Amino acid sequence: MDHLKRIVILADDEITPSPAKTLTGILRYRSDRVVAVVDNHNAGRDTGEAVGGGLGAGIPIVADIAAAMAFEPDSVLLGTEPTGGILPPSWRPLILEVIGRGLDVINGLHTMLGEDEEFSAAAERSGARIWDVRREPKERYTVELREDGKPVFEIRKHRPGSRTVLAVGTDCGIGKMTTMLEIEREALHRGLAPAFVATGQIGTMITGRGVSIDAIMVDYVAKIIEDEVCAAVEESDLVLVEGQGALNHPRGSGGPLFLMHGSRADSLIMCHDLSRPTIKLLPDHPLPSLERAIEMHAEGASWLWPKGRCPIVGISLITAGLPDDRAREEIAAIEAATGLPATDVVRYGAAPLLDAILAGPTA
Amino acid sequence: MDHLKRIVILADDEITPSPAKTLTGILRYRSDRVVAVVDNHNAGRDTGEAVGGGLGAGIPIVADIAAAMAFEPDSVLLGTEPTGGILPPSWRPLILEVIGRGLDVINGLHTMLGEDEEFSAAAERSGARIWDVRREPKERYTVELREDGKPVFEIRKHRPGSRTVLAVGTDCGIGKMTTMLEIEREALHRGLAPAFVATGQIGTMITGRGVSIDAIMVDYVAKIIEDEVCAAVEESDLVLVEGQGALNHPRGSGGPLFLMHGSRADSLIMCHDLSRPTIKLLPDHPLPSLERAIEMHAEGASWLWPKGRCPIVGISLITAGLPDDRAREEIAAIEAATGLPATDVVRYGAAPLLDAILAGPTA
Repeated sequence: MDHLKRIVILADDEITPSPAKTLTGILRYRSDRVVAVVDNHNAGRDTGEAVGGGLGAGIPIVADIAAAMAFEPDSVLLGTEPTGGILPPSWRPLILEVIGRGLDVINGLHTMLGEDEEFSAAAERSGARIWDVRREPKERYTVELREDGKPVFEIRKHRPGSRTVLAVGTDCGIGKMTTMLEIEREALHRGLAPAFVATGQIGTMITGRGVSIDAIMVDYVAKIIEDEVCAAVEESDLVLVEGQGALNHPRGSGGPLFLMHGSRADSLIMCHDLSRPTIKLLPDHPLPSLERAIEMHAEGASWLWPKGRCPIVGISLITAGLPDDRAREEIAAIEAATGLPATDVVRYGAAPLLDAILAGPTA
Repeated sequence: MDHLKRIVILADDEITPSPAKTLTGILRYRSDRVVAVVDNHNAGRDTGEAVGGGLGAGIPIVADIAAAMAFEPDSVLLGTEPTGGILPPSWRPLILEVIGRGLDVINGLHTMLGEDEEFSAAAERSGARIWDVRREPKERYTVELREDGKPVFEIRKHRPGSRTVLAVGTDCGIGKMTTMLEIEREALHRGLAPAFVATGQIGTMITGRGVSIDAIMVDYVAKIIEDEVCAAVEESDLVLVEGQGALNHPRGSGGPLFLMHGSRADSLIMCHDLSRPTIKLLPDHPLPSLERAIEMHAEGASWLWPKGRCPIVGISLITAGLPDDRAREEIAAIEAATGLPATDVVRYGAAPLLDAILAGPTA
């Protein structure tokens, strides 16, 4: 996304009642590049006021792409999130309009717009480029061969002294990316040189590089995670890996296990939302307690490594909705119950988590 | 594979020193359709004698495809297994020869021969068909919508009284498919109507249907497993799901967790090889003890369900290499240590495992 400086976020129906995570992620970390947000329900308002929490303050909300053109955009980011990540047919005319206006498209869906004949033909005519962020990395479905022609099959260890940290959580969409980006911010503030490894489409949009592990074939995912993380460990002493899924999610349990084992994390940060009783959209699936979630991750780590390797070293809580004093009380209570440092990284910063990571295990 | 009656298995370098699992799987369950095996190292021998254990007795081994033509084949099954499942460039001329002779190709690699221009052009000329068994099921990367346009997101329960059983194991290639096919055979023998759900390319070749879960994108794999198993549960009271990977495999831990959770198994059969000290090809990764492996699977099940749901009810052992009396002693010792029935399904049949399944939990 580095070459795109004037982005319009398409967020129809994604601001109210609660803002979608693509929108909030981009606003939180790349708002300097956003010139307008499109949402017909909130046109005329300021983004910071409509989204809440001041995110995107000063960025106007407009009713449609035509209105957004006044802000001289160079690109449109699809900020809408249909469950399953498949392009709804009703979006087609809108995307054709965007491409027809010569604007680049930043797309986080599983549907590859660049492989669609109509979209790619339109892009060729207008000169627009399509960035399909969640592309299946088929060029990496390869096997490295030794000199004798036999395949290399080796689990590489990380550089001694380096630290690889993975965010895990009790659900999807529970702050794993935000937690790692806030820890990165805190580390940069302290003069460290962290490396952030994006493993989802939003993290990739924000940082301009990464691979969406949910778009990788099961047979290759562990190896590709290993490669991403090993490359980062060569460059940095502090590698921050964005997490995905949850071990207790009925549709999303394998991904985080691949991530934990493939990233060879030295420590974990546990993410949790104090106001969420169940898995999102699955009211029959209550979230585990934090104590239980910590235990589950210790179990999963022990399947591959000696007990105690890859511990949870800190807790990242979403306390949104609680007044400041109540939030601080909850955080203190959780610290007392678990014996681990806890914080809400958005409200109170990530310093306690970075402290815990730096006091924690290395490779 | 139902339409193919006269198959040649291409097994160059795959018989000695130890036969590959595609070869042994096809020979064990579909040898009635195999007319010849190609292996230049063992040409002239009988397959049953070269492979050992009498598998494929009476099937001749020939030096090349030209020699195999004497047996009037209708198809060639690629029985060679390069690590990673990618087509080695050196195979290209051989596959072109097969296609050029008008023989259908049965391919279990990740490489899709049918999407290769040279192969598909050759097939068009000769009339050969290419069956890419391990095809990524992209047509199933969809989202079901409700009448109001919102996506369906629901974890279906199984029909009460039905039994879904999944094979798990301490490594890849440790008898999970064979165990379930032997349990199926035993169930058929007893007049039951089991349904076998293939989750890998060899199981799919043998049974003619199934989906290779290692060729599915991470984001869709749990849902596709759910769909496969739910369809089988509608048809049968006894659903036998082929397993994949191992929770303790550094590259293969996520798949079996997706399978356990997605299949909503009521019980598990644990597969283990008494002569294997470590993960195959990874000498630094010792296999867990059976007791530890049982504990690990109980942990993984408890992440989603109440403790005790989805128990291991029996143990399937590979005792190859041990004389009969030693094998029986080992089996008895393991039964005593674990309190679970155990058997070597190939040597002693699957009856104790089926007994345990039928005495075990239902949905």
